[in-house]
Amino acid sequence: MFAKQLFAKFNYIGLNGKRLLSLSTNYGLVYEEYGDPIQVLKKCDISSKTSRPLKAHEVKVSYLASPVNPADINTIQGVYAVKPQLPAVGGNEGVARVVGIGSDVKAVKEGDRVIPSSSSTGTWRTHAILPEKDLIIIDPDIDVLTAAQLTVNPCTAYRMLKDFIPLTKGDTVIQNGANSAVGVYAIQLAKEWQINTINVIRQRPDFAELKHKLVSLGATHVITEEELRQKDVMDSVFKNIPKPRLALNCVGGKNATDCMRHLDSNGAMVTYGGMSKQPVIIPTGALIFKDQKFFGYWMTRWYRDNTGNNERALMLKYLCSLIKTGKLESPKSVAIGLDEYKDAINKTMAGFAGVKYVFVMKP
Amino acid sequence: MFAKQLFAKFNYIGLNGKRLLSLSTNYGLVYEEYGDPIQVLKKCDISSKTSRPLKAHEVKVSYLASPVNPADINTIQGVYAVKPQLPAVGGNEGVARVVGIGSDVKAVKEGDRVIPSSSSTGTWRTHAILPEKDLIIIDPDIDVLTAAQLTVNPCTAYRMLKDFIPLTKGDTVIQNGANSAVGVYAIQLAKEWQINTINVIRQRPDFAELKHKLVSLGATHVITEEELRQKDVMDSVFKNIPKPRLALNCVGGKNATDCMRHLDSNGAMVTYGGMSKQPVIIPTGALIFKDQKFFGYWMTRWYRDNTGNNERALMLKYLCSLIKTGKLESPKSVAIGLDEYKDAINKTMAGFAGVKYVFVMKP
Repeated sequence: MFAKQLFAKFNYIGLNGKRLLSLSTNYGLVYEEYGDPIQVLKKCDISSKTSRPLKAHEVKVSYLASPVNPADINTIQGVYAVKPQLPAVGGNEGVARVVGIGSDVKAVKEGDRVIPSSSSTGTWRTHAILPEKDLIIIDPDIDVLTAAQLTVNPCTAYRMLKDFIPLTKGDTVIQNGANSAVGVYAIQLAKEWQINTINVIRQRPDFAELKHKLVSLGATHVITEEELRQKDVMDSVFKNIPKPRLALNCVGGKNATDCMRHLDSNGAMVTYGGMSKQPVIIPTGALIFKDQKFFGYWMTRWYRDNTGNNERALMLKYLCSLIKTGKLESPKSVAIGLDEYKDAINKTMAGFAGVKYVFVMKP
Repeated sequence: MFAKQLFAKFNYIGLNGKRLLSLSTNYGLVYEEYGDPIQVLKKCDISSKTSRPLKAHEVKVSYLASPVNPADINTIQGVYAVKPQLPAVGGNEGVARVVGIGSDVKAVKEGDRVIPSSSSTGTWRTHAILPEKDLIIIDPDIDVLTAAQLTVNPCTAYRMLKDFIPLTKGDTVIQNGANSAVGVYAIQLAKEWQINTINVIRQRPDFAELKHKLVSLGATHVITEEELRQKDVMDSVFKNIPKPRLALNCVGGKNATDCMRHLDSNGAMVTYGGMSKQPVIIPTGALIFKDQKFFGYWMTRWYRDNTGNNERALMLKYLCSLIKTGKLESPKSVAIGLDEYKDAINKTMAGFAGVKYVFVMKP
């Protein structure tokens, strides 16, 4: 039954040779059931979905690049908070070129560089037909690897720094997992806005090198999780900068609690990940007497809540302007072919630190 | 040195007989160092502070009643977030009668029933001289035991229900420690505002009786901490009322986490106590995917932040109107003399459930 659905939706070219004439470069990584991505993902011909005539407000795009994010893998595993209708194409973000437009399309024209504005449209594919309203034009001068990763990580950093605590020049933000993709963007945005950052990372063999890298991007302080608990280290940190009014947390557990101990009264902690797989543990006094506030952040929800307003376009325009002037650098990315998806997924699941695999589609 | 400060501030009548002529009924329970209240509290003559001529905007009051709250005891122990300048008089709330006014006092007149609007003025005493601006007139028809306890518990319940999540008729609130003083007020206010309450209390021998009492005050559901974890019980609770949008937490630990599991997406938990002495433990998913928000509440801070606006007077007027019409009943109170302070403090420290000791001063 799954197979039947799949055939119906994506016009899979079976070994029986039927429809062989429609063979084309329009394909995608499709899964028809949740499970281990290596098992359930199949390379499928999707031409019947992408070669049909366009409706008045539809746009055909050709994908240039799309990253492999951990959340994409969790989505395919069926353990993520988003469960696409099956069968589905993997991938949540990416950058594409407009290759065809419907008769009434006004927002984009052929050749425009675009990104999808809805999440879970499935970006691990060569082509897609999408409604005009679900596309956002972006600057063609942004390199494709960076453009493909624009909607999740830099936007998460941007919104967390903007939407919870009003920060002004000279304020401080503390973050753990500071070498995560979001963390690296947060460092650079904070630097641009003249906000100090205390960046907490795990002790590791290449700590000095990583610290140097983060400092070169604009980090005010880079410390280990152990140093965060050492009074003399923290006294020295707070000699020149104020206590943080905002904490960004993607770790949880003991380390998140250590971060909140340095958070100013009335400050807020925003949790956007839980790498330690431990919950966020808050001493009662932090809530009652220090009036600290605890929020969560999920980019997918923000997009859902901000459909139809101009905020997303403004944010992307701003981020692109920083990228173009070299003020915002994306974390290290490795280009990989869509056909090598098993390799990209295996390596992402193994968690090669600091490297993002990005599918680059052949035109 | 402590003793010297104390003499200077409160004109303690020593055994040497000096100032014997000034002996009067003006006395208070004074402590000159933090520690065990039974050890450090002394009954002191405070006449020199209360018998002097009044300045233009000063008011002399005669206390009628003041409760013994756990926070008062923690303050004297030196373990509370408020540390009054020593020597200090115990007690934080109370009700008094105006017995003298300065030449320019306009806000109150002799005979008025008043409560102090600043916290930590020290209310375990017979008399005080306070600035006119620090007094709020309240309805003389409220019985003194209730009036003496007006500023902390009912106001905490009121603000927590009002200030975090906009609730409307038919919404639900879940609270643990529902038989606490704040909990009992929250039940009654929610009933008045047609808000459903799920009230969680510990299993106890007199559970049926306590449940009956809380239901008679307006509780929609009363369940044990164990029942909160039973699917069939909770399914039955949610057959007729929506998931809670607000959770009030004075327990912490496992029970607070159990409460947040039933909290609606985008709901908030407000922590105002930590009876279990365990922190608040939040699964990462509750923050990121359910967008639940976690706040603390402290009445003392609210008063501090709302000095000079009319909110407090409005709230007290509203609460008094409910009390007068029998819609707001205070938890069981036991009147005790100021001289019997050791007994009142010992019993409060022993935590006799559901009973509040209130000093009633002889006129």
